[in-house]
Amino acid sequence: METPDSPKALRPALYLLPSTMSDAPVSDVLPARNIEVMRQIRHFVVENVRTARRFLKRADRSICIDELSFTELNEHTPASEVEAMLAPLLEGHPVGVISEAGCPAVADPGADLVAAAQRRGLEVVPMVGPSSILMALMGSGFNGQQFAFAGYLPYESKARAARLREMTRRIAHDDQTQIFIETPYRNNKLIAELASTLPGELRLCVACDITGPGQTIVTRKLSEWRRVKPDYDKRPTIFLLYR
Amino acid sequence: METPDSPKALRPALYLLPSTMSDAPVSDVLPARNIEVMRQIRHFVVENVRTARRFLKRADRSICIDELSFTELNEHTPASEVEAMLAPLLEGHPVGVISEAGCPAVADPGADLVAAAQRRGLEVVPMVGPSSILMALMGSGFNGQQFAFAGYLPYESKARAARLREMTRRIAHDDQTQIFIETPYRNNKLIAELASTLPGELRLCVACDITGPGQTIVTRKLSEWRRVKPDYDKRPTIFLLYR
Repeated sequence: METPDSPKALRPALYLLPSTMSDAPVSDVLPARNIEVMRQIRHFVVENVRTARRFLKRADRSICIDELSFTELNEHTPASEVEAMLAPLLEGHPVGVISEAGCPAVADPGADLVAAAQRRGLEVVPMVGPSSILMALMGSGFNGQQFAFAGYLPYESKARAARLREMTRRIAHDDQTQIFIETPYRNNKLIAELASTLPGELRLCVACDITGPGQTIVTRKLSEWRRVKPDYDKRPTIFLLYR
Repeated sequence: METPDSPKALRPALYLLPSTMSDAPVSDVLPARNIEVMRQIRHFVVENVRTARRFLKRADRSICIDELSFTELNEHTPASEVEAMLAPLLEGHPVGVISEAGCPAVADPGADLVAAAQRRGLEVVPMVGPSSILMALMGSGFNGQQFAFAGYLPYESKARAARLREMTRRIAHDDQTQIFIETPYRNNKLIAELASTLPGELRLCVACDITGPGQTIVTRKLSEWRRVKPDYDKRPTIFLLYR
């Protein structure tokens, strides 16, 4: 008989469960342990219910989705509703957090819920999984001892130019790799902009479709990016700058 | 018969293979795909030959270690020797990179070799695995939309104080989570230092023994860290600061 003290029962905690970022088989990007943990959770907080259900079904066809409870946490969720999502955990049940693609709480919703759990002294357990930011950094050849992720560049042209100057300065002054993203339909425009406005000897790494069938991670000097015109539009892409 | 064009043969590329960071079972922290890839590689570049051999044997007992070639790449390796490590890849064989713990090229050696591969237009394939930096960030509840990893704090007291001021400024000004590490035997001293010199309302997350049996990820205000005295000395620990 399995009791809560049995070594096989899952401790009540907030489990941060990375999801797949592409159609790659689940076992290509997630450890077997993640599936075991998911199987034992009944309460999920997810960025999108439909994709979370599909992901769980792909991870383990034997999971009975209809017995699970799902609460959505995304950019539309009022901050006042986050705290209540910990209710099952306070009652002693493990809670799983699943974001749309990749790792919850990193460039994805979930951090507010984790912060609420930390405030109450509840255990938080991050699980291993694909992070396009981390994998792009690994593949870039850039400095992995100092790096910064900045999210989206500002859209407004003055703020954007100032941000690019600041990034250039931090590469030179702090020896810090700069990582950022763009709205996917503007990827090509961004590459052209970087190539035409920043020093040509800086190197740009474009990491596209990480873990997907079209995965490509290419590092070139900006002076070389001026000459090539690959098409990255509408594909999930991470950009990295370094000297 | 398997030819290089067979879909099952591993493409010649530089495979970045994360390793375990603790005694946790390999299947707890690595996808099955990683083991399949490792099995097909004969040429490895590793931070430490002894631990890499032990890791491969733990990952798959059937791997015949004596048939593999290992080249060491670590802080003692002259930069002039890195390029030559790509020789098997240039001859059409996949090459694997394994660091001491966690992800190659992120807060670990390997970036120089990746950069050399990128310069020659060779394919680089990062694999999924445990990163204490990323997992600590997930578990902290801090901002995952903007963050920076700074490696070790400077040892010299004036430079160290300046770095702490700069980190405090970047939290306030850039809304950026600050991530850093310390020599493990000085972990307790660092916590006391942060608690006594920085504003008490800042939050410090201490993430210790990630993926290991003693894993603990705790976020508190610095004013609270002043009152508690947990013992983190000589344990692998990541520190994160945010407001």
